[in-house]
Amino acid sequence: MKQYQDKQFLEQIQNYIGHLAYTHEPEDLYKPIEYVLGLGGKRIRPILMLMAYNLYKDDIESILSQAAAIETYHNFTLLHDDLMDNADLRRNRPTVHKKWNENTAILSGDTMLILSYQMMINSCPSEYVGKVMETFGKAALEVCEGQQWDMDFETRLDVSADEYMKMICLKTSVLLAASLKIGAILGGASCEDANLIYDFGIRMGLAFQLQDDYLDVYADPNVFGKNIGGDICSNKKTYMLITALEKTEGNEKNELLYWLNAKTFDPAEKIKAVTDIYNNIGVPEICLKKINTLYDEGLEILDKVSVADYLKDNLRKFTGKLMNRSL
Amino acid sequence: MKQYQDKQFLEQIQNYIGHLAYTHEPEDLYKPIEYVLGLGGKRIRPILMLMAYNLYKDDIESILSQAAAIETYHNFTLLHDDLMDNADLRRNRPTVHKKWNENTAILSGDTMLILSYQMMINSCPSEYVGKVMETFGKAALEVCEGQQWDMDFETRLDVSADEYMKMICLKTSVLLAASLKIGAILGGASCEDANLIYDFGIRMGLAFQLQDDYLDVYADPNVFGKNIGGDICSNKKTYMLITALEKTEGNEKNELLYWLNAKTFDPAEKIKAVTDIYNNIGVPEICLKKINTLYDEGLEILDKVSVADYLKDNLRKFTGKLMNRSL
Repeated sequence: MKQYQDKQFLEQIQNYIGHLAYTHEPEDLYKPIEYVLGLGGKRIRPILMLMAYNLYKDDIESILSQAAAIETYHNFTLLHDDLMDNADLRRNRPTVHKKWNENTAILSGDTMLILSYQMMINSCPSEYVGKVMETFGKAALEVCEGQQWDMDFETRLDVSADEYMKMICLKTSVLLAASLKIGAILGGASCEDANLIYDFGIRMGLAFQLQDDYLDVYADPNVFGKNIGGDICSNKKTYMLITALEKTEGNEKNELLYWLNAKTFDPAEKIKAVTDIYNNIGVPEICLKKINTLYDEGLEILDKVSVADYLKDNLRKFTGKLMNRSL
Repeated sequence: MKQYQDKQFLEQIQNYIGHLAYTHEPEDLYKPIEYVLGLGGKRIRPILMLMAYNLYKDDIESILSQAAAIETYHNFTLLHDDLMDNADLRRNRPTVHKKWNENTAILSGDTMLILSYQMMINSCPSEYVGKVMETFGKAALEVCEGQQWDMDFETRLDVSADEYMKMICLKTSVLLAASLKIGAILGGASCEDANLIYDFGIRMGLAFQLQDDYLDVYADPNVFGKNIGGDICSNKKTYMLITALEKTEGNEKNELLYWLNAKTFDPAEKIKAVTDIYNNIGVPEICLKKINTLYDEGLEILDKVSVADYLKDNLRKFTGKLMNRSL
């Protein structure tokens, strides 16, 4: 069976998304959609879908509508999340509510969500449409639930590590997992295989998100290319901070709470102080261990999928690159 | 075949919607959905769906999930429209963005849209799922387009009557028509019947919306129970105003434009002046003729549907009550 390079998957997706006809009127509704989908991004979810499909079949062009659907859904969530967070920029370009206005962001986002359903159903073989739509609908709903938990957690100091893991699972992992599962279903995978591939995606999504938290504190800024300590400055409830709140007591806990409650502070000083607490109580080691465990579990689950081992190399390499931040 | 009373259709729907289990967490996501669906309303769209189904079959309880889906979709549009219009009240109760906040309104609305798709697919017989989802998806998209045109028109003075008719068709009629068509499809109607029933819905929706414009100026306030002239005061681009802008010239046009541009005015004086212009150039007659033509066309189309005539009585009576505002 023909196996593709990851850039070939990406090319197919970019080409398909680039040729989607948004010549519809009204312009004020469709221009923002074209804009958002044209901002680029790594197209991780559609690539995962095509790769999962390619475990079973090699006519990947036949599921490009479903691949574009998952990317459209993902971009809908970014559009509405940016509005809810009042973010100014997305991929270094103005967000839709800044470039147009809030009402346009609401309505264009709604339209993208509807379009993602259209594309998901479009040319979906009738024997798979039930399972595909069930998988997609469940993930679509769970992503909204994850976003709500994330907003709820902003005003809480008692979030447990388990609650946090559940939140990032809903907000991030389930869509990656559903992308993979839909690809597998469309490829004709057994129910067992499809579920294994889903679980592989869950583990990889969790590992990736935890690593994101870790890198925000411990990455080499020269390599990672983003400022270090942003999460610490903004008191973002990451796995690192939640673990520290759970593990500290006495003076150390008071110092941590002091920095969390400080209204004015020197950013470098706060970052150093909180990082020192993390280091003292072994937060980075706990976090790294969790990341590695999840990643290894993911690979073990992938091993169990009942196709020839060499066919899994694309998924192994791609998730490896994701974790190395080398995509 | 068993025929129901319209209150029986309503009871089934209210009962079904009342028992939908929103015990899900997070509460902040699902409470507003329960609230919105609990505000009541006439449940026109699901009743039309059940009535169209009852032209062919009488086990209406088997399509309550689809009926609830269309009502959930409709309420999603109200939720997001109220946010975009910054409306304080809906059915005399605070809107979601007032009772909670704007982010809750965005995310709960998104979730309702996803739930409406879930309910539409749920237990939909596989032989109809393609046609049902196509009809639903098309209408869902067109309602968003209609809303965008409506917002675009607010800042334009050159909207033509044709453009206005197209806008209200998208914003109001297509969902009524799709409700009817989905009911017919699920009942096993022929393609021809399903399209006739759709067209019947389009005509009735247009007639209803135009009558809404008319009644805002010419209704008896004691009977209609709402203030007269609200649209005139707010310069709302209704069919009446657009027709007046098209038909007036010279001094009369200048007087109309004077009132449209007046920053401060006595409401009663503006309402009287604009109504006088309407009366002078025959706007109410044009509007009433259009309403009656559309309504009669609708009934003629219904006549052509290939089921026994007595089966159509429920739809005739219900649309009659809608037009009489006696529901």
